[in-house]
Amino acid sequence: MANGTNISALFSEKLQVINIGLDGFAQTLQELGIPVEMMDWRPPAGGDQELMAIVDSLRSDTGDGWQEEIAQANQEAIKRLLAAKPVIKGIGTAIDVVPGMKKNMILHAGPPVTWERMCGPMRGAVIGGLIYKGLANDVREAEALATSGEITFEPCHHHAAVGPMAGVMTPSMPVWIIENETFGNRAYCTLNEGLGKVLRYGAYSSEVIDRLNWMRNSLAPMMADVIKAHGVIDMKSLITQALQMGDEGHNRNRAGTSLFIREIAPFLVRLDRPREEIAKVLEFLNGNDHFFLNLTMPTGKASLDAAANITGSSLVTVMARNGTEFGIRLSSTGDKWFTAPAPMVDGLYLPGFSAEDAAPDIGDSSITETTGYGGFAMAAAPAIVQFVGGTPQRAIEFTQRMYEITMAENNAYQVPVLGFRGTPTGIDVLKVVDTGIVPAINTGIAHKEPGIGMVGAGLVTPPISCFRDGARALAEKIAKQSN
Amino acid sequence: MANGTNISALFSEKLQVINIGLDGFAQTLQELGIPVEMMDWRPPAGGDQELMAIVDSLRSDTGDGWQEEIAQANQEAIKRLLAAKPVIKGIGTAIDVVPGMKKNMILHAGPPVTWERMCGPMRGAVIGGLIYKGLANDVREAEALATSGEITFEPCHHHAAVGPMAGVMTPSMPVWIIENETFGNRAYCTLNEGLGKVLRYGAYSSEVIDRLNWMRNSLAPMMADVIKAHGVIDMKSLITQALQMGDEGHNRNRAGTSLFIREIAPFLVRLDRPREEIAKVLEFLNGNDHFFLNLTMPTGKASLDAAANITGSSLVTVMARNGTEFGIRLSSTGDKWFTAPAPMVDGLYLPGFSAEDAAPDIGDSSITETTGYGGFAMAAAPAIVQFVGGTPQRAIEFTQRMYEITMAENNAYQVPVLGFRGTPTGIDVLKVVDTGIVPAINTGIAHKEPGIGMVGAGLVTPPISCFRDGARALAEKIAKQSN
Repeated sequence: MANGTNISALFSEKLQVINIGLDGFAQTLQELGIPVEMMDWRPPAGGDQELMAIVDSLRSDTGDGWQEEIAQANQEAIKRLLAAKPVIKGIGTAIDVVPGMKKNMILHAGPPVTWERMCGPMRGAVIGGLIYKGLANDVREAEALATSGEITFEPCHHHAAVGPMAGVMTPSMPVWIIENETFGNRAYCTLNEGLGKVLRYGAYSSEVIDRLNWMRNSLAPMMADVIKAHGVIDMKSLITQALQMGDEGHNRNRAGTSLFIREIAPFLVRLDRPREEIAKVLEFLNGNDHFFLNLTMPTGKASLDAAANITGSSLVTVMARNGTEFGIRLSSTGDKWFTAPAPMVDGLYLPGFSAEDAAPDIGDSSITETTGYGGFAMAAAPAIVQFVGGTPQRAIEFTQRMYEITMAENNAYQVPVLGFRGTPTGIDVLKVVDTGIVPAINTGIAHKEPGIGMVGAGLVTPPISCFRDGARALAEKIAKQSN
Repeated sequence: MANGTNISALFSEKLQVINIGLDGFAQTLQELGIPVEMMDWRPPAGGDQELMAIVDSLRSDTGDGWQEEIAQANQEAIKRLLAAKPVIKGIGTAIDVVPGMKKNMILHAGPPVTWERMCGPMRGAVIGGLIYKGLANDVREAEALATSGEITFEPCHHHAAVGPMAGVMTPSMPVWIIENETFGNRAYCTLNEGLGKVLRYGAYSSEVIDRLNWMRNSLAPMMADVIKAHGVIDMKSLITQALQMGDEGHNRNRAGTSLFIREIAPFLVRLDRPREEIAKVLEFLNGNDHFFLNLTMPTGKASLDAAANITGSSLVTVMARNGTEFGIRLSSTGDKWFTAPAPMVDGLYLPGFSAEDAAPDIGDSSITETTGYGGFAMAAAPAIVQFVGGTPQRAIEFTQRMYEITMAENNAYQVPVLGFRGTPTGIDVLKVVDTGIVPAINTGIAHKEPGIGMVGAGLVTPPISCFRDGARALAEKIAKQSN
C-alpha cells in the first residue's frame, strides 16, 4: 500500500502519535522530537480470567455484540435515552415536590452513606443545611443533631434528584423541576450557588447561609414566575447550542448560562418586583457561570430515569459519588448500587491549595457523563482545560475514546470539531469491562475538611471494580432467568 | 530516522493528508481511502517574473525576511496593532462624532464608488438611508436625489468608520464609539439591525425604516446610558472570551452577543425607562446574534488605524468591498487604495435563493480578518460552517494557512483547539504575493437587486491583484526613498 513517495510525503507532515500500552515505543518517538500522547489502557477485564469468561458468555454467536436478550434490552434502553425531551417545568420547594422527601430528611450526593462515614465536605454541607433549616445555631449543635438519629440521610438518586458535589438538599430548599415530556417523569435539583465558599463544597459560614436564604426568598420565586411567564424551556436545545459554544455541560457552563440569561431576561424585567431586586438577580447570574450546571444535571437524571429498570440492559443509568464511595447503577439491576472507594482527582488547584487539601471524588454531577455530555463531550469544550487541566488535544481524545464504551452517538448533542458527530451516549457496562476503558469524568474538588469549600477542579478515573461488579451481577441475573 | 517499526505504527493511525499543488498525488491517496484536503495554491507572485524579482529585491541578505527598513517598519506596525486596547466608549450621533461627517453626506462600505457604479444592495441601502433621513418619501424620490449631485458619497474608511455590507451611515444615525486607549484614536460603526430584511443588505421597506427609527429613538439612547453607568467595556477581553466560545467575530457572534447582554442587563434594568421599553431591548438583543459584529468591526478599525502610515511597512491596514470593487490599503502607502473587481461569494443560500440572486462581495466587515479574527480565527468557530458552508476541518485549515501570510500570533485572541495558539495577525502584503496565499474571509451575501436583503452567507477569495499592486507600490516607494 505504502510506496516510497507516500512515506516521504507523510514524514513531511507534522506527526502526532498516540501510544497505547507499553512505554518503549513512545520513548523512541519522543527522543526524535515527535509529540506523543500516552493513553492509559488496561487489559480486558483487568486480566480477570473468570470475569472475561463471563463477558464472553454474554456475546452473540457472531461475537460482534451481546446475545439477543441483552441486545434487545439495550436497544430499548438507548431508544428511550435518546427519545428524552427534558424541559424546565418550573421551581418548587423540595418538601412539596420531591417524591419521598420528609421533614427531617437530608438528601446527599452519591450512594448511601451514614454520618459516621461521610467525608469532610459532605459533613460541612450537612452542618450548613441544618443551620439553614434553623435546626441548629452553630457547628456543635448541628453535629449533635446529625449524630442524634433524628435526621434521616438518603441519596438524592433515591428521590429522582441529583445534587452537585455534597449534593445536600433540605426540605425547605427551592428546586428546579425538569420534566421529560416524552415519558412524563420528572427530576429535581437545587439552584446553583456559584463557586468558592458554597454549601455544596462543604462551606457553612454566614455568607453561605445568607446566600441560600436570598436564593430561597428572592431568586427562586422570581425564577418560578419567569418560567411561568415564558413557558417551559427546552433543555435539549439549550445544551445542543451550548456544545457549539465551547461548553460540555459539566464543568464548563459559560455558554449555557449565557443562553439562559438572554432567554429569560425580558421576562425577568416584566415581573412585578422592585427593579433593584431584578438587577441583583441579573448580577448574580452574570457572576455565576455554573448556574446552568444545576439544570444540565436534572436534565440528565430525567433522561436516564426513563431508561432505567429494563431487564437485561447493560446501560449504566447512574454514576455518583459521595466523597467516600463511587457508585453506579445499571438499568437491568434497578436500585442496586455497585460501589468502590471514591478515587482522588487529578486537577488544578486554586491559589493557596494543593492536592493535600483535596477530598476524594464527590457529587452526582457525573450524571452528565452518564447522559452523554460533560467529560464525554470535552472535545466540544477545549477551553475547559484551563479549569480542569490537560490539553485541548487530550480533551478531544477523551471524547473519542468514549465511543468505545457507549451504545450510540447522540441524536441532538454534537461535537462540531469532530464534524458534528453525536456525542458518545449510553455507557455499556459490558463494554467498559471488555475494553478496560473507564468513563471520562471531569469534576470540581472540595477541601477535605468541612467548612472550607472549593479548592480546585480536575479529571477523575472511576474505579473499574464497580463496573466489574455490575457486569457480574448482570450476568448472574441473566443466568438465573435462563434457568 | 524512520525505521520499519515506526512506519508501520504510523500507518496504523488514521492518516490525514493535505495536498498542495498538483492533483495526482492526492488522487492516489484518495483511491486508497485516505482523506485528502486540497489546498488551492498559486505559484509565487502568480508566475509574474517581474513582480517576483521586485519581491526578491526586498528580501534581507540572509533571505529569511525583508530588508532592514521594511523589517523595522513592520516591527513597529505589528507592535502597535498588538498593543491596541479597544474599549466601548459610548454612543453618539454620526454628525456629532464622526470626523468629517457632513449634513448631506452618506458613508458607504469599501473603496470610493459613485452612485452610477454602485451595486444593487448599496443603492438599496442609500435609498433606505435617504427615506430614513426624511429627504425622500419613496424610491423614486430617493433615486432622483441620489443622482442629483446634492448627496456626497464617501467611504466609511475615510472617516475612521466601518460599516457591514452596504455600510451606509447617514448623519443622523447613532454610532458606537470605540476608543483605542493605548493610542487615543477612535473608530465608529452603526448599531446592528439583525439579519434578513435590513438596510445593510439593501432592503428599505417600512419595517426596515421603522426599526432604524426605533434604534435611534429607543435602543441607542438606552445603550448610551448603559455604557455611561457601566463604564467603558473592554472589547479585547470580550472577543478573547468569545473565541473560546465558538465565535470568530465576523459571521459568528452568538457568544459575543450573549456576553454583552449578560454584562449590560443589570445596568439596563436600572435605567429610568419604562419596563416594557427595557424588555423590548432585551428581546431585540436576544433575537439578534449579529449585534456584536458592529462592535468587533470598529474594534478592528480602532486597532489597525494606530498601525497605519508607517513608512516602509507592508502591513495591510484595510480590506474592504463596496460590492463593485475589493480594495486594500497598506500602512506604508497611507490613504491609497489598491482595488480590483469584487469577487462572488461561495456560500449557502437561504430558502428560495441561489447563487444567481447574489451580489458580489460587499462590506467593511473584512476589517475583522485584517485585525486577526473573523475568517482568520475560524478554527475557533467550527459551528460557523452551518452558516457559511464548509467543514470544521476546513475551518481549522483556514486559520492554519493564515499563519503563512501574517506577521505575528495574537497576544490576546487565541484558538483553543490549536492549543491556545494566538490567531494569525497582521497581514503582510509581501507574504501574500510571495506565497500566493490570499486572506481567508467569510461574509454575508446580499441580493443583487436593491430592496430585497440577505440571501445567504459564505466564503470569499479576495482578488490577488490588489495585493500585487500594493506590493509594487510599496517597492516603488522604497526605491524612491533609497535614491
